[in-house]
Amino acid sequence: MAGPAQAGHQRARAPPDRPRPADDLVSYEEARLAFRNHGFHLETLDRPITPLGSHFLLIHFDVPELRAEDYAIKIGGHVREPLSLRLDELTARPTVRQPTILECAGVGRAFLHPRPIYVPWFNEPMGVYEYTGTPLRSVLEQAGLREGATEVVFTGWDEGVDLGVTHAFERALPLDEAMKDGVILAWEANGQPLLPAHGFPLRLIVPTWYGMASVKWLRSITVIDHTYQGVQQKQVYRFQTSSSDLGRPIRKKAVRAAMKPPGIPDLISRERFVSRGRTTIHGMAWSGNGSITKVEVSIDDRRSWRPATLEAPVSPYAWTPWRFSWDANRPGEHMLSCRATDSAGNRQPRNPVWNLQGMAQNGAERVPVRVR
Amino acid sequence: MAGPAQAGHQRARAPPDRPRPADDLVSYEEARLAFRNHGFHLETLDRPITPLGSHFLLIHFDVPELRAEDYAIKIGGHVREPLSLRLDELTARPTVRQPTILECAGVGRAFLHPRPIYVPWFNEPMGVYEYTGTPLRSVLEQAGLREGATEVVFTGWDEGVDLGVTHAFERALPLDEAMKDGVILAWEANGQPLLPAHGFPLRLIVPTWYGMASVKWLRSITVIDHTYQGVQQKQVYRFQTSSSDLGRPIRKKAVRAAMKPPGIPDLISRERFVSRGRTTIHGMAWSGNGSITKVEVSIDDRRSWRPATLEAPVSPYAWTPWRFSWDANRPGEHMLSCRATDSAGNRQPRNPVWNLQGMAQNGAERVPVRVR
Repeated sequence: MAGPAQAGHQRARAPPDRPRPADDLVSYEEARLAFRNHGFHLETLDRPITPLGSHFLLIHFDVPELRAEDYAIKIGGHVREPLSLRLDELTARPTVRQPTILECAGVGRAFLHPRPIYVPWFNEPMGVYEYTGTPLRSVLEQAGLREGATEVVFTGWDEGVDLGVTHAFERALPLDEAMKDGVILAWEANGQPLLPAHGFPLRLIVPTWYGMASVKWLRSITVIDHTYQGVQQKQVYRFQTSSSDLGRPIRKKAVRAAMKPPGIPDLISRERFVSRGRTTIHGMAWSGNGSITKVEVSIDDRRSWRPATLEAPVSPYAWTPWRFSWDANRPGEHMLSCRATDSAGNRQPRNPVWNLQGMAQNGAERVPVRVR
Repeated sequence: MAGPAQAGHQRARAPPDRPRPADDLVSYEEARLAFRNHGFHLETLDRPITPLGSHFLLIHFDVPELRAEDYAIKIGGHVREPLSLRLDELTARPTVRQPTILECAGVGRAFLHPRPIYVPWFNEPMGVYEYTGTPLRSVLEQAGLREGATEVVFTGWDEGVDLGVTHAFERALPLDEAMKDGVILAWEANGQPLLPAHGFPLRLIVPTWYGMASVKWLRSITVIDHTYQGVQQKQVYRFQTSSSDLGRPIRKKAVRAAMKPPGIPDLISRERFVSRGRTTIHGMAWSGNGSITKVEVSIDDRRSWRPATLEAPVSPYAWTPWRFSWDANRPGEHMLSCRATDSAGNRQPRNPVWNLQGMAQNGAERVPVRVR
């Protein structure tokens, strides 16, 4: 392993057919956001539950410092009986434990051109923790929804400036979505209190929506009788085809399959090295619009597809494991890919679909591998 | 807060005097590394112990999947009695708990020009967990060092390719460093098993050295009677002034002070907004070469410096809290900075000092703030 000292790491310039952002460069601001907003560790994709600390994080402003013993959440607005619930009152309520997938709406943004400036996610903003919490519906029912209630607003303790507006992070759900099974107020992930950066002491979990709906560090829940107009709902998190398009709101997670990168990595490029022979490729697939009915794998850069074998979903709210046996008998470079189809008939597109904010991009992922 | 939908986030182009990498752009490869290699959350800098999940991570290859119940570490090489220790045998040994600072040797790399290609850290690769472990010295003494032992090699379970060489991550310590107080084999951080991405089930902790010495996912410890020649010691982690310079090895952490960014952030640029009036600035300082004797703050972009107030170090192996009262009475833009001095007389330089691999860069950090 010894040798003369080399000139250090050189830029690993991949051939032009490699999956990469169209302009191949990100800005100072984006790189800083990439450090703050932790990526999922793709090598854990064969584990049903993501290990603590390997789940993605999207922190819009700062992680607030909150103490469990002081904590209480207010439920008010268009209700008959406003409530304030301490953490010990919440944990005394009916409790569920549910593995749930969260995914950032900015997934795949880096592959768009031009690329909207925000967190430049590739394919790593997701994860499945097993959450412990209490159904939101019973809390809302206890407060008593008044006639005309239409939406429920969730306000976090995190505050900052976006698009020139100072605000606490805040999102709303339509009432029917807020009342659904699986929507919970969670205080634990993987059997222990939420990590501070992941929402301690209490966050919302909305299984089918992209992550921005699952508001962290909950301060209050407010039932309203009108349409919510906050920055993070009416301006950000919209699928806009141009700057003059008001766009439609981003809501449910688009169908997606992700692959555990096989073999071992190069430190800089993260290209994978696989030993010649038969190898099993593992991955996960999920959708906010139904169950996973099919996953296909391509070993020829999306020219042909073969079915993967599906396992049972980890939970109704989590992901579905899949595997594919690959006979890696030809040394050299290969481009692997995977795509999923859900029970509503949605299938991932072959290529990224551009939109102004770079939201909900679910083009089939491409994983370069070198067989040796 | 409502308004017409805007064109989404625009690139926040800061004025040219802002702290930024000289070329202001990072590559595809570097951005992916920034997502995998989690940054410390700077807003937690006023907490003596970093919350779980907010500590930096540097994962050279993949996070290996290891099970505590199968785990054993081998201690061998130039010893009288090679050992194999299971986790329950390790935890039955004399135990210490010590808050310890870890920092990546790549700190501040992004501010160099030209910038070496690797993880493009700004000022966020650090953290202090309270580790539980057992002194390495007593393990080595039990194995019995043979005459002529010079170095101790630590091998991880993580394997990959770097500089064209396939290898497990591996580093060596000189024997006198390995025998020092504070060098421990750790199985817990903040009172619970190490997070998988942070070295579960066992890692080395070397308090005074940069993080690469604190090998994660330990597989074996090998005493040798010669000079270790591995890739990560002889080629990487060296302070080289040119590609023809063999360089000197990076070892102990250079003195550094870091500031909790005051006020609230802009979501994209992370610029800070501070309310007019007196505000207390908090931060931490540390050095691998002694205790912290002085921290100074500049409110005029390093033209003049005023002393901060030091508190007692969090532990002999961790960082020293400091605070500074700032009368933020002038609205508009300000450039704050901080620098530390250690008991060996080392003081941070005003500007980054370039080196080929971008290692151990400790120029005084600059924090842009807008008073309003």
